[in-house]
Amino acid sequence: MTVYHAPTRDMRFCTEELADLDGISRLPGMEAAEADVVQAVLEEAGRLATEVLAPLNPEGDRNGARIQGDDVHETPGFADAYRQFVEGGWNSLPFSADHGGGGLPSVVSFPVGEIWQASNMAFSLCPMLSQAAVEALIAHGSEALQKTYLPKLISGEWTGTMDLTEPQAGSDLAAVASKAVPQDDHYLITGQKIFITWGDHQMTDNIIHMVLARLPDAPTGVKGISLFLVPKYLVDDSGNTGPRNDMRPVSIEHKIGIHGSPTCVISLGDNGGAIGYLVGEKHNGLACMFTMMNLARLHVGIEGVGIADRAYQRAARYAKERVQGNAAGSNERVTIIHHPDVRRMLMTMKSTVEGMRALCTVAGSAMDFATYSTDADEKARNKARLDLLVPAVKGWCTEEAQQVVSLGVQIHGGMGYVEETGAAQHFRDARIATIYEGTTGIQAQDLVGRKILRDEGRAMDVLIADIRKTVQELSEVDEFGDIERNLHLAVDALESATAFLIENQREDPHTAGAVSYYLLMLTGVTAAGWQMGRSALIARNKLENNAEGASFFQAKIVTSKFFCEHLLSRARAYGDAIAAGSANVMALDETQF
Amino acid sequence: MTVYHAPTRDMRFCTEELADLDGISRLPGMEAAEADVVQAVLEEAGRLATEVLAPLNPEGDRNGARIQGDDVHETPGFADAYRQFVEGGWNSLPFSADHGGGGLPSVVSFPVGEIWQASNMAFSLCPMLSQAAVEALIAHGSEALQKTYLPKLISGEWTGTMDLTEPQAGSDLAAVASKAVPQDDHYLITGQKIFITWGDHQMTDNIIHMVLARLPDAPTGVKGISLFLVPKYLVDDSGNTGPRNDMRPVSIEHKIGIHGSPTCVISLGDNGGAIGYLVGEKHNGLACMFTMMNLARLHVGIEGVGIADRAYQRAARYAKERVQGNAAGSNERVTIIHHPDVRRMLMTMKSTVEGMRALCTVAGSAMDFATYSTDADEKARNKARLDLLVPAVKGWCTEEAQQVVSLGVQIHGGMGYVEETGAAQHFRDARIATIYEGTTGIQAQDLVGRKILRDEGRAMDVLIADIRKTVQELSEVDEFGDIERNLHLAVDALESATAFLIENQREDPHTAGAVSYYLLMLTGVTAAGWQMGRSALIARNKLENNAEGASFFQAKIVTSKFFCEHLLSRARAYGDAIAAGSANVMALDETQF
Repeated sequence: MTVYHAPTRDMRFCTEELADLDGISRLPGMEAAEADVVQAVLEEAGRLATEVLAPLNPEGDRNGARIQGDDVHETPGFADAYRQFVEGGWNSLPFSADHGGGGLPSVVSFPVGEIWQASNMAFSLCPMLSQAAVEALIAHGSEALQKTYLPKLISGEWTGTMDLTEPQAGSDLAAVASKAVPQDDHYLITGQKIFITWGDHQMTDNIIHMVLARLPDAPTGVKGISLFLVPKYLVDDSGNTGPRNDMRPVSIEHKIGIHGSPTCVISLGDNGGAIGYLVGEKHNGLACMFTMMNLARLHVGIEGVGIADRAYQRAARYAKERVQGNAAGSNERVTIIHHPDVRRMLMTMKSTVEGMRALCTVAGSAMDFATYSTDADEKARNKARLDLLVPAVKGWCTEEAQQVVSLGVQIHGGMGYVEETGAAQHFRDARIATIYEGTTGIQAQDLVGRKILRDEGRAMDVLIADIRKTVQELSEVDEFGDIERNLHLAVDALESATAFLIENQREDPHTAGAVSYYLLMLTGVTAAGWQMGRSALIARNKLENNAEGASFFQAKIVTSKFFCEHLLSRARAYGDAIAAGSANVMALDETQF
Repeated sequence: MTVYHAPTRDMRFCTEELADLDGISRLPGMEAAEADVVQAVLEEAGRLATEVLAPLNPEGDRNGARIQGDDVHETPGFADAYRQFVEGGWNSLPFSADHGGGGLPSVVSFPVGEIWQASNMAFSLCPMLSQAAVEALIAHGSEALQKTYLPKLISGEWTGTMDLTEPQAGSDLAAVASKAVPQDDHYLITGQKIFITWGDHQMTDNIIHMVLARLPDAPTGVKGISLFLVPKYLVDDSGNTGPRNDMRPVSIEHKIGIHGSPTCVISLGDNGGAIGYLVGEKHNGLACMFTMMNLARLHVGIEGVGIADRAYQRAARYAKERVQGNAAGSNERVTIIHHPDVRRMLMTMKSTVEGMRALCTVAGSAMDFATYSTDADEKARNKARLDLLVPAVKGWCTEEAQQVVSLGVQIHGGMGYVEETGAAQHFRDARIATIYEGTTGIQAQDLVGRKILRDEGRAMDVLIADIRKTVQELSEVDEFGDIERNLHLAVDALESATAFLIENQREDPHTAGAVSYYLLMLTGVTAAGWQMGRSALIARNKLENNAEGASFFQAKIVTSKFFCEHLLSRARAYGDAIAAGSANVMALDETQF
């Protein structure tokens, strides 16, 4: 029931063929990222996922984290799995060799992350949050803080958290009210944080919290928040853990899913103040937070891929086993995979997962070139592309994941609505993904505001031009006429929508908010459809050259065609909704709702 | 937190303006259905829902039904609520006065049903299933069976169930294996039934099960199943309940939601055979079952409206209360209903709910004219319309309900993913609606097979012609240009898709199955969009004539426009997917999944 196989074949296709692994392996410091090394890493991650993490996934759901006194106790078995995860070097994999990490690029750590999320989403959130804390510490922490905390966070000996949200400050961090008062070499922090993922547990000797709070002299609003490192147990100069800090989990949330991941309410400073250390400059917490958030957003997008693939794998297996009804025009009873409507659902799931995975891997590639390239133009070009893609990866992948996990339930019929098959858990677990690390609305706002209006659509223009090149290539292959037509319509819709936004926002400040969701979905599906178009061209070329594994390439072409006919065809509907503008979105007064 | 207000204003609009309540009240036996009576009935139902059923809804979720020995114990408080429900005459409301019912038409009992489903979905399934059992007994039961069982089922003194599904026979009833052996004046029934909604409880003295089973001389397949009435407690000739029958609940399912509704596995004949009585003719169980199923399908479609409206009401209230972020271009903190993307979500919820409600009420109207009209043409015309609409009502409304309840969670942000706000319960409860009483795939198959291909699209042609009349009327109003354009595109897509199906099914037997889901969605959104177009025309007329309640009519016009711009605009995408046919749906072999 808990079988999961890492989709390493498709991951190799995405990294090697779509995301230029070869080019990335020539970047300084990335030499380890050769194709055969990457393949071995993916296979090995897949093994741990199949053998250790996936079997624990239903246990985390049924026997979730519990709070007792001031301590959260994680699901039995998670601590041992975490030990194996750390001993395998998986926690340090995404970090550069300079910091004791695996020295592998994002284009590899992204699919590895997908494997963790797919096999056990609740578990995987713990290393994911640690990674975000590490990135913030690397980017903004003092040398002293780095020396004390980085090695153990990178190895996984300690875990990290992000403590941003407060009851009155969810999407709106301007309202953060936690206080930090300077004292000696540190600060005393008081306040209450909510929705703290893996905010407490017993798997490691210490937990390092990255906490947003406000200094006494802070200006109001987002420009007055600062970031602090607050360890659960205080650490002395030799790096030994000492007494417990003045912070404690006071409750854990009763959630729809991810029961294995303790979502904590954390109280800081009940006895005078939790000792914390400033990370980065005073009042510059927002910038530090964005370092954490950008990566976390990409990872939540990848989580959408992972949980969707898990649901797809389970549904495909069920559809091959469950006998029900007859084949068309026959009395022979068949497995339900023979029924066209079940096929439609499976193909929707499969093509969505592959489109999402392609998009995420290409975003990882942009991140690698933006980080490691020595060519200033290449660096800047990839940075702009990445910035544009982050909200699409997070927003579109997590929204589409909802549809995929729901289809996973649907294929199971009545058995999908009861808990024993496991389809229900994926459905419940996945629902958080469009909410945390910035809701879909926040991603959409980021896309239209910071990523399109701010540069007057220049990064989007470059993306559109790149897509049009693929449209041109597709037009030269008769067999790909439908892919070409749908991608062409989609990119036209994207261009019109971007122009509509820029033009109308001047006159009507509600335009951006009213069209933002649709523009996010249009960007996501078009960018993913672009990758599916590229995939079809590459697969055709492989087949013509008699490359090994014809079945994979044939399936890739069918899946690409299906994606364009069934998903990309929504692009015009998004475009129509955008062209309608804000008028009817905003027309009612409050009493009319 | 549990406030629910029955949307009686919109219900009156649907019944009086869209569904010809006036015409229905002139049908024989329907004289009671005058507008002021109907309004009073809706208000009174709303009162019971607000005061009794809605407050019990979270209790049913947290403290669901339990099994102990051979007895299921429902949520505390449900028995008292059921008593009030029965004492108010609500159980008998939908039945004709001839049988001791309320004598009100479907166009009234449908919105009343919506009120029950919205206020407490788990509770409302009990009277809904009773109603299905009653309809089967009225249509197919012998006089003796009717005399013994009908009065108490109609009054609500006893409840009824439908026992169709077996582990190997879900969507495919040909595989039903329960056995019925004749003995004296009855049959001895053995077998196991699963997914039996309200299969046992302690709210009434008896439970009447309608059970599908197979006689010893039965042919194989669906033509060999018969329907039996099997009481939990045997009933003597005077109507008194005696000893317990040889049937018992053996377990209840652990489900995603509707925890207040016990979903039972029922074992029949562990000690020799449960005593049952044949309903209708031998081997004709399928026809009897369809009597139950058609009504149950309409009611599950209405359930989609109800649960969606409940989620909408909760989200709208939250959006008016939750302060977060600033108004565009201002430093003033505002409630989130001021944010355009939140507005977009609320408008999507509101317009979907109103489109669904309009469609359901119009289907109820067709049912009333088909049942009570004395004009043979009118009767036949409405029967054909109803048959065409049943799968659209069930399939489209329940699919769209999933999107609405998910938006309800989304508007709550992180608070939506935790259980305390109640948004999560609606999300979990609603997920069953696309599955039971025939999955969406089964509805789609019914639409393309029995409702379109069988009459070569004639009933669909009539629907299309009716919609085109509204398109024509809309084209005469400048203000409604966008509604007209979207409805025009949608009805064109529906016509092309129907033609494509009929033409291609001859050559390719996979066509029907491959396009069926999209044709279902296209039919649903176009038929609902048609009602929203009609609604806009009627509302405009009311405003021009200075009718009372201008705010309602103004809002109706905005909501209709929004529906057409944001939902109906998907019609072309459905059409494109249909035009792609079955090729890429069916191209992969099993190993490629």
